Amino acid sequence: MVSALAEHVAAAPLVDHHAHGAFTVEVERAEFEGHLNEGSPAPIPPWMTQFDSQLGFAVRRWCAPVLDLPEHAPADEYWKRRTELGVDEVTRRFLGGAGVSDWIVDTGYATSSLLGLEGMESASGARAHEVVRLEALAEELALDNVSGRDYADAFTARLAARAENAVGAKSILAYRTGFDIDLTPPSPAEVTAAADRWLDTGGDEPRLDDEVLIRFGLHAAIERGLPLQLHTGIGDRDLDLHRVNPLHLLDLLRATSDVPILLLHCYPYHREAGYLAQAFPNVHFDVGLGINHTGVRSVAVVAESFELAPFAKQLYSSDAWGPPELHYLGALLWRRAVTTTFGRWVADDDWSEADARRVVNMIAHENARRVYRL
Amino acid sequence: MVSALAEHVAAAPLVDHHAHGAFTVEVERAEFEGHLNEGSPAPIPPWMTQFDSQLGFAVRRWCAPVLDLPEHAPADEYWKRRTELGVDEVTRRFLGGAGVSDWIVDTGYATSSLLGLEGMESASGARAHEVVRLEALAEELALDNVSGRDYADAFTARLAARAENAVGAKSILAYRTGFDIDLTPPSPAEVTAAADRWLDTGGDEPRLDDEVLIRFGLHAAIERGLPLQLHTGIGDRDLDLHRVNPLHLLDLLRATSDVPILLLHCYPYHREAGYLAQAFPNVHFDVGLGINHTGVRSVAVVAESFELAPFAKQLYSSDAWGPPELHYLGALLWRRAVTTTFGRWVADDDWSEADARRVVNMIAHENARRVYRL
Amino acid sequence: MVSALAEHVAAAPLVDHHAHGAFTVEVERAEFEGHLNEGSPAPIPPWMTQFDSQLGFAVRRWCAPVLDLPEHAPADEYWKRRTELGVDEVTRRFLGGAGVSDWIVDTGYATSSLLGLEGMESASGARAHEVVRLEALAEELALDNVSGRDYADAFTARLAARAENAVGAKSILAYRTGFDIDLTPPSPAEVTAAADRWLDTGGDEPRLDDEVLIRFGLHAAIERGLPLQLHTGIGDRDLDLHRVNPLHLLDLLRATSDVPILLLHCYPYHREAGYLAQAFPNVHFDVGLGINHTGVRSVAVVAESFELAPFAKQLYSSDAWGPPELHYLGALLWRRAVTTTFGRWVADDDWSEADARRVVNMIAHENARRVYRL
Repeated sequence: MVSALAEHVAAAPLVDHHAHGAFTVEVERAEFEGHLNEGSPAPIPPWMTQFDSQLGFAVRRWCAPVLDLPEHAPADEYWKRRTELGVDEVTRRFLGGAGVSDWIVDTGYATSSLLGLEGMESASGARAHEVVRLEALAEELALDNVSGRDYADAFTARLAARAENAVGAKSILAYRTGFDIDLTPPSPAEVTAAADRWLDTGGDEPRLDDEVLIRFGLHAAIERGLPLQLHTGIGDRDLDLHRVNPLHLLDLLRATSDVPILLLHCYPYHREAGYLAQAFPNVHFDVGLGINHTGVRSVAVVAESFELAPFAKQLYSSDAWGPPELHYLGALLWRRAVTTTFGRWVADDDWSEADARRVVNMIAHENARRVYRL
Repeated sequence: MVSALAEHVAAAPLVDHHAHGAFTVEVERAEFEGHLNEGSPAPIPPWMTQFDSQLGFAVRRWCAPVLDLPEHAPADEYWKRRTELGVDEVTRRFLGGAGVSDWIVDTGYATSSLLGLEGMESASGARAHEVVRLEALAEELALDNVSGRDYADAFTARLAARAENAVGAKSILAYRTGFDIDLTPPSPAEVTAAADRWLDTGGDEPRLDDEVLIRFGLHAAIERGLPLQLHTGIGDRDLDLHRVNPLHLLDLLRATSDVPILLLHCYPYHREAGYLAQAFPNVHFDVGLGINHTGVRSVAVVAESFELAPFAKQLYSSDAWGPPELHYLGALLWRRAVTTTFGRWVADDDWSEADARRVVNMIAHENARRVYRL
Repeated sequence: MVSALAEHVAAAPLVDHHAHGAFTVEVERAEFEGHLNEGSPAPIPPWMTQFDSQLGFAVRRWCAPVLDLPEHAPADEYWKRRTELGVDEVTRRFLGGAGVSDWIVDTGYATSSLLGLEGMESASGARAHEVVRLEALAEELALDNVSGRDYADAFTARLAARAENAVGAKSILAYRTGFDIDLTPPSPAEVTAAADRWLDTGGDEPRLDDEVLIRFGLHAAIERGLPLQLHTGIGDRDLDLHRVNPLHLLDLLRATSDVPILLLHCYPYHREAGYLAQAFPNVHFDVGLGINHTGVRSVAVVAESFELAPFAKQLYSSDAWGPPELHYLGALLWRRAVTTTFGRWVADDDWSEADARRVVNMIAHENARRVYRL
């Protein structure tokens, strides 16, 4: 019974509803190891290797065979073989092997060294869809020398244009302001004043950290009815983790009734996210980054995500960025966690096998297809 | 050994130390599904059913056989059979089958469609005891046109009268103010002024949301020495979940030394509650709502509740309100969680079986009988 | 395979990187039971025994055989046998049996009834190293009648002198101020003014609770490059648990780049601590107190500590103080948790056995030897 379920999970096509592109360039090992560490922008210290972590162990266990190595191949051998195969072959193997039918791609961050939508499609044989990062859109306006007075209209118009080809929007206010601030829509006068101030700071690499303009962007996306992804929980140490607990979004959520809100990652606040997904018909969530970065412990993390939330409110994502191992491993570990967890419940007769298969389909792709109208 | 333990757990009579009445009226399916969702007052969206949740799956698994259906009966069949049997028969089966010897009933909320104490007794064959909801008592005074100047005395007198037939008091300040406010006793002058203000707002359905009067009620109950139940953790989205983490009660708890304080639900802050139950001789807790609403995952939640708290400080409750499935399922899932968890510890020789039985009795009924002097 | 791993774990020498001395005096049973309760300074109520807790059950299960009693011996028999053997013999058995090669001892709290470094060494046959408690050092200065103007220099000089024979420093600002305050270094003028004020309050038992002086001490230790231990998470109820979540240290951690920071205990915020250990190359953590006080549940707590943190950033500690059962049991339960957890991962082929052994060695002693330069 469990093994029939395992086959069902293995064959279920996944919508990875929040990913980034895979690298187009060869990277050094130090940079690669840095990408196995979500939290720190600092170099890995010389007295350790990031391979000695749950994610590193999972790469050696599950990704090594994809590169024709034995399971648990030592890090040095892994690195040697990876270099030997080259970025194109490595990418093709991992993206193609993930069992993903649709990538929903945030194209808003550091994309010059990453595959775009078309590149993701041709490397994986799957469809790719775009999500517009709201803060990046504002930063484009700054580079275009929009004036403070025109900012609101220009933002709305550009969002409308981009929404033609996008399935959703994303905000990283987690990194820029935290959630424990006033998140109501600012007045037009406030927006103009804030835009005047922020645009004035100028520079070649504008970075939107103005609270008023971030709130404006958020509400512009909500008003347009775009499914809205919000980074919550773990991320790099720029953010104050306790200030991006999704519970701080309560007032914002109370003011949005129809537009789908997608809480990303959420770890270690995934129980809180599950509560919000029960309390608000429009709130959905995933455990994104919390899967890859906990390796074998992702079984426990995924199990904890099945508590309060109705099953129609959970999605799958990898949040992979850069190494295509992450696109592959996220899918593999999610499948493994679901097979183990649901398998035990079916074996103990807590769930029926038919129900387990049904829930697998909902989270693997049905919920995402409904939310993003794929 | 485990199976002897299972028999012991199955036979242990339960004191459900925090419940509400079961429905006296037939409800529509939409309303029923709404009661499987603690968090949201909004209708269940048309693209989903609340049966697709851990609680819904547990109802189909464990409650269906009580209605003569096979385990995991589909939701439509469950609903058909339930309607066919009618509210009285359904209630009798679930309340009678729970293995509860004593219900401690909060009679303070929306009780017109619910069984009262006598109704609970005759439907279940068990004893029922009352808990006085402090905010409801204040709202009665408002309907009686008490003056601001008389408020404090009238409240104290009414509480004394009600305490004759009640085993404890309950406050839902979680819903009305949150815990992160000054919780010291207000002065008499403050109470009079607040009562003048609040009583003046009038209306046919007064709702006590005044901080001063809520604090006054809380301390009136403490002074009277009544065991005091406090809703903490999950509940509907009216509350700010992060503001009802029981740790915000620390200053209040430091100021109460003898009167038993009962922290209800606590999820997802049940570890914090366990800490408080270790740190304060008068603090007790349960995982109430956290059992029914997590279904099969209640095994994990109950296991997590056995960490810091001494075993004399934990109680059982269902917090069932309305559908009698919740009165039944809470008891069943608690028994299942305890059997599984303690059973593993006994099998691994971490606990002796005699100790496991002893702890079962403490939490099933002994602690509650001591606290409420049943 | 699992059993070879178990043998490896059993034989791995431990560095207990945060402990206190064992009792030198006989204590009454009431006092002993009080020491099985970390949270409460109040007497155990007469209607319960602290033996009825996870820690109490673990003492009866694992410590009883060390005193020649059967496993799970009743509390009364345990106490009788313990008294019969006397403090020296009991201490010798437990300290000697812990498999600890090095104790790193905080000598700063209530040490008159505890073994010092030499006493710990002779009772256990292991090495002992000192950690300087920063707040205790300030309190020594107060007893020496240092003036406000001389405070900063005197503190720095005394710290330098003590650092000659110490392997690290420790701060208990968790108990004195909480973490959610400004933790930047104070100016010299602020230090002098604060020292004038605080030294003036005088008394025979000065207690450093001045924020400025605590911050000054913290930064004096950081500047000297001493590995810095910080109590975080659970402790007695003097502290506001939610205000000692290590996430509130983010700003402080962002300002320290090289000196090792050791977050102690962390429970129930050990996932947050694991995040910080990933995000900052100099941050390390343990689950200290969270092991002994959760007994059989320490398996789950330890497993949760293996999520985000790289394996080079985790250490072992008991935080034992007083009863030598705690020095023994911490080591035993940690070994048991690691054997169970890693054993399952190896059995499921998620980890290789060689990797599991390697990680055991890192956490048992290698990381601590590197951090403290033992």
